[in-house]
Amino acid sequence: MAESMKGLKRTCRCAEVTKADIGKKVTLMGWVQKSRNKGGIIFVDLRDRSGIMQIIFENGPISEEGFEKAAKLRSEFVIAVEGEVMARSGAVNENLATGELEVKAESLRILSEAETPPFPIEEDSKTREELRLKYRYLDLRRPDIQRNLIMRSKVAMLTREFMSKEGFLEIETPMLTKSTPEGARDYLVPSRVHPGSFYALPQSPQLFKQLLMCSGYDRYIQIVKCFRDEDLRADRQPEFTQIDMELAFVDVDDVIDVNERLLAHLFKEVLGVEVQLPIQRMTWKEAMNRFGSDKPDLRFGMELVDVSETVKDTEFVVFKGALENGGSVRGINAKGQGAMPRKKIDKLVEFAKGYGAKGLAYIAIHEDGSWKSSFSKFMTEEQMEALIKAMDGQAGDLLLFAADRNKIVWNVLGALRLELAEQMGLLDKNEYRFVWITEFPLLEWSDEENRFTAMHHPFTMPMDEDLPLLDTDPGAVRAKAYDIVLNGTEIGGGSVRIHQNDVQEKMFEMLGFTKAQAHERFGFLLDAFKYGVPPHAGLAYGLDRLVMLMAKEDSIRDVIAFPKVKDASCLMTEAPSPVDAAQLEELGLEVEPQAEEETTEE
Amino acid sequence: MAESMKGLKRTCRCAEVTKADIGKKVTLMGWVQKSRNKGGIIFVDLRDRSGIMQIIFENGPISEEGFEKAAKLRSEFVIAVEGEVMARSGAVNENLATGELEVKAESLRILSEAETPPFPIEEDSKTREELRLKYRYLDLRRPDIQRNLIMRSKVAMLTREFMSKEGFLEIETPMLTKSTPEGARDYLVPSRVHPGSFYALPQSPQLFKQLLMCSGYDRYIQIVKCFRDEDLRADRQPEFTQIDMELAFVDVDDVIDVNERLLAHLFKEVLGVEVQLPIQRMTWKEAMNRFGSDKPDLRFGMELVDVSETVKDTEFVVFKGALENGGSVRGINAKGQGAMPRKKIDKLVEFAKGYGAKGLAYIAIHEDGSWKSSFSKFMTEEQMEALIKAMDGQAGDLLLFAADRNKIVWNVLGALRLELAEQMGLLDKNEYRFVWITEFPLLEWSDEENRFTAMHHPFTMPMDEDLPLLDTDPGAVRAKAYDIVLNGTEIGGGSVRIHQNDVQEKMFEMLGFTKAQAHERFGFLLDAFKYGVPPHAGLAYGLDRLVMLMAKEDSIRDVIAFPKVKDASCLMTEAPSPVDAAQLEELGLEVEPQAEEETTEE
Repeated sequence: MAESMKGLKRTCRCAEVTKADIGKKVTLMGWVQKSRNKGGIIFVDLRDRSGIMQIIFENGPISEEGFEKAAKLRSEFVIAVEGEVMARSGAVNENLATGELEVKAESLRILSEAETPPFPIEEDSKTREELRLKYRYLDLRRPDIQRNLIMRSKVAMLTREFMSKEGFLEIETPMLTKSTPEGARDYLVPSRVHPGSFYALPQSPQLFKQLLMCSGYDRYIQIVKCFRDEDLRADRQPEFTQIDMELAFVDVDDVIDVNERLLAHLFKEVLGVEVQLPIQRMTWKEAMNRFGSDKPDLRFGMELVDVSETVKDTEFVVFKGALENGGSVRGINAKGQGAMPRKKIDKLVEFAKGYGAKGLAYIAIHEDGSWKSSFSKFMTEEQMEALIKAMDGQAGDLLLFAADRNKIVWNVLGALRLELAEQMGLLDKNEYRFVWITEFPLLEWSDEENRFTAMHHPFTMPMDEDLPLLDTDPGAVRAKAYDIVLNGTEIGGGSVRIHQNDVQEKMFEMLGFTKAQAHERFGFLLDAFKYGVPPHAGLAYGLDRLVMLMAKEDSIRDVIAFPKVKDASCLMTEAPSPVDAAQLEELGLEVEPQAEEETTEE
Repeated sequence: MAESMKGLKRTCRCAEVTKADIGKKVTLMGWVQKSRNKGGIIFVDLRDRSGIMQIIFENGPISEEGFEKAAKLRSEFVIAVEGEVMARSGAVNENLATGELEVKAESLRILSEAETPPFPIEEDSKTREELRLKYRYLDLRRPDIQRNLIMRSKVAMLTREFMSKEGFLEIETPMLTKSTPEGARDYLVPSRVHPGSFYALPQSPQLFKQLLMCSGYDRYIQIVKCFRDEDLRADRQPEFTQIDMELAFVDVDDVIDVNERLLAHLFKEVLGVEVQLPIQRMTWKEAMNRFGSDKPDLRFGMELVDVSETVKDTEFVVFKGALENGGSVRGINAKGQGAMPRKKIDKLVEFAKGYGAKGLAYIAIHEDGSWKSSFSKFMTEEQMEALIKAMDGQAGDLLLFAADRNKIVWNVLGALRLELAEQMGLLDKNEYRFVWITEFPLLEWSDEENRFTAMHHPFTMPMDEDLPLLDTDPGAVRAKAYDIVLNGTEIGGGSVRIHQNDVQEKMFEMLGFTKAQAHERFGFLLDAFKYGVPPHAGLAYGLDRLVMLMAKEDSIRDVIAFPKVKDASCLMTEAPSPVDAAQLEELGLEVEPQAEEETTEE
């Protein structure tokens, strides 16, 4: 039975007791981690969010009745213990912050009993994730997840404090709003008062934060939920959290400056890591050429080498064809992987095909300096040697080549580079390598839509010197856009916004919007721009991803209290779920009957 | 044409310039509040979020070309000015923080031109709210609204800092979730992956924060959007913001203690107001008896007086009937209102009827001590005098009486008391009177549903000493619930939660839930309670209302950046709006055809 805590007051948390408290009385409350009876003494590990304290129940200091109660304790019981802090009489536990201490219990109350949990509450749980997420309230008791969520809380708080000191105002933007132009699928919310009409949940507060700049708020920040109804990947959730900001009267350098200082502050305060400022900047073009990615992982080298010039006269049709079609031939050098078995190389070829490659050419250099290659028969000895030299190939290296349109070559080698780094153990989670990627292309040609689309969004400002290209060579126009990349993950991105009506109209024209279409979608923003709009720019971080990297986790689900799984459902609450017919009727909606197979996950 | 700000850097905001800066160069950027040419000198009031600075354009300090540009400035143009800070040469403006200063412009750039806004940007705007909300981005430029939103940002920041120091963790709970038990109507979000299923937007994070306590997080805080699809009143929005908290291992006093200190901190830091601690506490019963309200405004007296005993022997059927039906007769004394014209009294009677009264009895005491009354013919002289004495009626007072069931009497006189205070000018927005209301009834009888409903929610803990009454007299059971009331507005409320499975089951039984129903709605909470749950309690503030009172506004729309109007629409974005048929098809939904009249506001 549950006893009341009436008359008791917790004095501190378990791991807040220090050696200075020896001899003092404390009242601790928490969960029984484990309990054992050894030679007539009961040892209980008491757990709360701070850590663990060993409690000793011994007849004498505690009454007989209390001792009997203690004998009944089982894992996950919630108890309150009064007792005296002592130096540990048994062996010191060096794994615990409180490992030199124990509390000799003088009274015990059982605040709540507990059934045996469906899986053990322990760090680095081996329990499968589905079961843990169904019982998320138990999973959240695990010390590693608790550390993650405590870290997340700290990151949010430090961010707010830092930005507040920098003059940023926290302003809340609406959740029930109109479709935003991010391009992903919106979550819709049917209106009851206006049947047949819908709100959209925001994909980001983009338009609102720009309006706030038009309204003179100057520096805006919000840590805010955003929503995208996309098919989920490991790194995605239907709802995710952005650290969202916007600044007026600034250009690229101002945004980068305040954000570098913010990141340095966070990493210093949370992890004790010094981020060297300024953070390296790299243009999009350089990032693609050197790393095949606009979010390069700089913790290791293995850079792409363009060997198009070296191989331009060979007869190898794969190389030749790529070059003739305006593409390129590039390679990476996997140092020391020259002895990789054929089977493993074949797997890399398959991997490359998954990224659009037609194949992968390789040269394996043996330790004796001889080599084996998939395409040497199409090349002269001199050509091969020139190629190896261009790649700085040494004894024991494995050289891998892709030949195709640039986009595919980058994509393939960028992915391959990461895959090899993973296999070769080059990714150290304790190392934090930041880089700003700048000068993104403004526009991307979409084959499906047969038009240019905005690489960031339609409000991104072109670089001043590229403005004339808008008419002559739109694909070559660079944007005042920037991403902040950490260890190969984009943790944030933003841009300077267009604040001139004429440039904005030109932009819409490039994107193929008629004036009427532009006005229907963004009318209130265009209207706002008529009444005096300051130059402004912004940036947003994915908080989930940022904390995931800081916590050295592989999944954002490990830094979100109540995450959803791949089919966008919550295993604990069983949301989404059917609703009453009456509720739908009030909304003026009907659910279409579904064929059985259509109701399964897409 | 818009000029670039390239090469310029804002040195500070307008009102950040002080006398210490005289002689220094500054670069200011902002909006032209007004501009006038006086004797060949152009005076511009430059506005940003900090305030206004007077800029002087005079040929000489500024080039001829610059001067010509300045001559073109109109309201709401966005400009950048470089110049020297000077003591004001003309008359000092005592209404401005910078009223003794001016900046002599040396260069000018027009960053953005502006059309004439549809209404003037000015404090205490006389423009009708509909127009202002349509152009909210302009309305938000008004200094009074800017002050409100800056205050709101400060309140949020101070709250987070304070609570963080008290050991509270900020933990985000889901927005896409399952129906919560608050009892209001949910906003639903159709699922695409699971057609025919819906998420609900949270009415509050109630269940999640209780689960976090079960998971050992100990002290939780979140400033979080909540949603209720109710017909709107002045004080309501479809989405609103809560300061939401929950604490484990605590009882009522612990929650009240930390919240009193939070409130005192906020009022001190934001308004310079000292809140005397401890804040007065009043039981629900006392509040109803003395003020006819569970959110009494203590800035003035005019308390209810129960005169049932005094009038119990009169022949006046209204009084007699009420008493015979178990009701009461109560009055209030509107001091000095004895000369109120009959017409105005009649309006009060109508007002009372709006709150359920069948009528209102009154005695107007003239300055000469004689009186006029609506019911004296049913009373003896002695009875009238006893009644006047019981009400402490003095020459010039107006005594008003309601007789009915207690609930109606409280309701009527509680409302009347506020109405009279308003008329009599007793409500001073500069005075802040807090009171905790405690010992609420646990259950309320619902005539419509013919069962008890939870006055707060089904997880509220009964008072220990009233537990036995659950079986014998459920309506008399008091709850460990508390509201914090400021100047007659409930700004927050909460309770100690049930943490014992058996008490929770009893509670569901009282509310008429079968075990299956309880499990369907709250299954995961009940499951969680099997595995060790600490005593816990919580509280939530309505941030919008709190800031509204602090900002001395009458509407929460004045402290929300992008509010909705009564029909839950946003006049600026025109949300909600119809969506593409393709979007609905993906969700497996059909909109029922609406008869014309049904599409109008309900």
